[in-house]
Amino acid sequence: MPTLAKAYVATSATSPLQPGVVERREPGESEVRIAIKFTGICHSDIHTARGDWAGVKYPVVVGHEIAGVVEAVGAKVTRYAVGDRVGVGCFVDSCRECANCLAGEEQYCLAGSISTYNSVGRDGLPTAGGYSTGIVVDENYVVRIPDGVSLEAAAPLLCAGITMYSPLRNWGAGPGKRVAIIGMGGLGHMGVKIAAALGAEVTVLSQSLKKQEDALRLGAEGYYATSDPATFEVLRDYFDLVINTVSADIDVDQYLSLLAVDGTMVLVGLPSKPLTQRAWSLIGSRRSLAGSKMGGIRQTQEMLNFCAAHGFGAEVEVIPASKINDAYERVMASDVRYRFVIDAATF
Amino acid sequence: MPTLAKAYVATSATSPLQPGVVERREPGESEVRIAIKFTGICHSDIHTARGDWAGVKYPVVVGHEIAGVVEAVGAKVTRYAVGDRVGVGCFVDSCRECANCLAGEEQYCLAGSISTYNSVGRDGLPTAGGYSTGIVVDENYVVRIPDGVSLEAAAPLLCAGITMYSPLRNWGAGPGKRVAIIGMGGLGHMGVKIAAALGAEVTVLSQSLKKQEDALRLGAEGYYATSDPATFEVLRDYFDLVINTVSADIDVDQYLSLLAVDGTMVLVGLPSKPLTQRAWSLIGSRRSLAGSKMGGIRQTQEMLNFCAAHGFGAEVEVIPASKINDAYERVMASDVRYRFVIDAATF
Repeated sequence: MPTLAKAYVATSATSPLQPGVVERREPGESEVRIAIKFTGICHSDIHTARGDWAGVKYPVVVGHEIAGVVEAVGAKVTRYAVGDRVGVGCFVDSCRECANCLAGEEQYCLAGSISTYNSVGRDGLPTAGGYSTGIVVDENYVVRIPDGVSLEAAAPLLCAGITMYSPLRNWGAGPGKRVAIIGMGGLGHMGVKIAAALGAEVTVLSQSLKKQEDALRLGAEGYYATSDPATFEVLRDYFDLVINTVSADIDVDQYLSLLAVDGTMVLVGLPSKPLTQRAWSLIGSRRSLAGSKMGGIRQTQEMLNFCAAHGFGAEVEVIPASKINDAYERVMASDVRYRFVIDAATF
Repeated sequence: MPTLAKAYVATSATSPLQPGVVERREPGESEVRIAIKFTGICHSDIHTARGDWAGVKYPVVVGHEIAGVVEAVGAKVTRYAVGDRVGVGCFVDSCRECANCLAGEEQYCLAGSISTYNSVGRDGLPTAGGYSTGIVVDENYVVRIPDGVSLEAAAPLLCAGITMYSPLRNWGAGPGKRVAIIGMGGLGHMGVKIAAALGAEVTVLSQSLKKQEDALRLGAEGYYATSDPATFEVLRDYFDLVINTVSADIDVDQYLSLLAVDGTMVLVGLPSKPLTQRAWSLIGSRRSLAGSKMGGIRQTQEMLNFCAAHGFGAEVEVIPASKINDAYERVMASDVRYRFVIDAATF
């Protein structure tokens, strides 16, 4: 039978999140019920809760960086057992039939994957995310959190981690490759950790030098302020891969000029306006401008295993649920090093 | 001692090309003098002759699709002998020391490769191109034209051919790959031939269906009119690689929507205005927008060997020099199937 989970709920675009409940269905045959332990706060949560993006249906329970423990399993579940440490990311289902799903790239499901919140599940009901004490998800959309990483440090890996890991792997970050990460926030700091662990030479490009010490500690070899025009002279034609985690509008030509021949700049943040660049910025040095969205379930598991094997998770600041609205303000002010994680025991 | 070659010369942006002469230096130790037999007419020639691009210095002799026969060699030339069939493309020298030159990608020389015309050579003199009866070029910037292809059909390969071959190879066109060529002109028709010979499934996207029969004959399997909105519905998420040969301004988002996950659209034509696209067009399906410029000397040779092995050159209409100005008008009106080639015996 359905259960009620405690939750923090956005009831309108303008009201603060407040305590409430969300109904969770009885796990189906292939589903697991997860006791949520920690949930990361992602920019997307804030955009959704505040109605910055079109199509938000209130009330909504956001949160898609979920780490917890399996507390019930359906009759045909084979991959997980009660007590397993598991995670759920940005989507909880997809069509399972299209070419992209079959290729394990469910995030690009041609029918549209079902988001963890503010979507409609197979049962016809709105999906509700991780700002709650429990969630029910098909086992095929659940990943295992290895013992080597704590649940609070693992939670942000489910979105920030995989969003960086996927393009880093896709575009071959590794020994001999020069990788730049634009932005030293929740995504950016994971980019530094993962790219460095992959063996690449990592440089951070950030507005100021405020987070330089942290970046070097996390594995970056270089750190430059984008507010200094000399940065774009010194690093011209230098990088094989630039990953832009910043959703602010940027001078695309300026950043493309940092790429060597065959270099790629990958967008993982979503700017509000269309991007414009001169064709010559691409043609003149066989450069590419690309985009990447999260990663598939298989690759998310691979990423978790990789992080655990290298002994790291995200850098987190654990907060009680009562501090969520304050945390939102601090995220908007870039005042977090580097991800807020909500302790679900406090919902 | 220097020799005088007959030529057709642009004396200003507004005057028609007219007969004249160009002085060619005595071949240096590592240089060859080539008796030009045929020269293709490229859009770039017209843009340069007419001053559409900044920095044109008149008088200028254009032409960078050069096919001819070696008629003299310097003392230290080892790669060519008198009588060899050879070609010269878009550049005649480069720094030879930068990472790109050392990698055989001289077209991306970091010091700037020396263009075949409207540039300044190592001797400090303006370079002059193929609308003439002879040219002197360092042997390292000359390629061999295999016996399997006629000189007139080979000439356009030196720019149009390599400009298509290079991105097709770089982005893996071959069996199992779906390739679209936008534009069925001088570049586009070579794209069809080469992509088909590489084993890819080739589709042409053209404004109208006028050249459909030709495209199918040259190896295309599909042909769609971009003036028909249904084209963009039918082909949504379909292609692995789209090469845009058209320099007209396009709706980039619309064309990106034709790419499958991991697909790339490559620009080889230079639009007059910056390009604009939504970030989501890239992020939503891990697509790339890229650019590519000609190809290096080694790859140009590989391309010529490939075309000869497959028994094709360009589709050409040979004209006498006296028809150059008429031909320019016809090129601007897309009234050529598919490349004008000037018979150098008529200069």
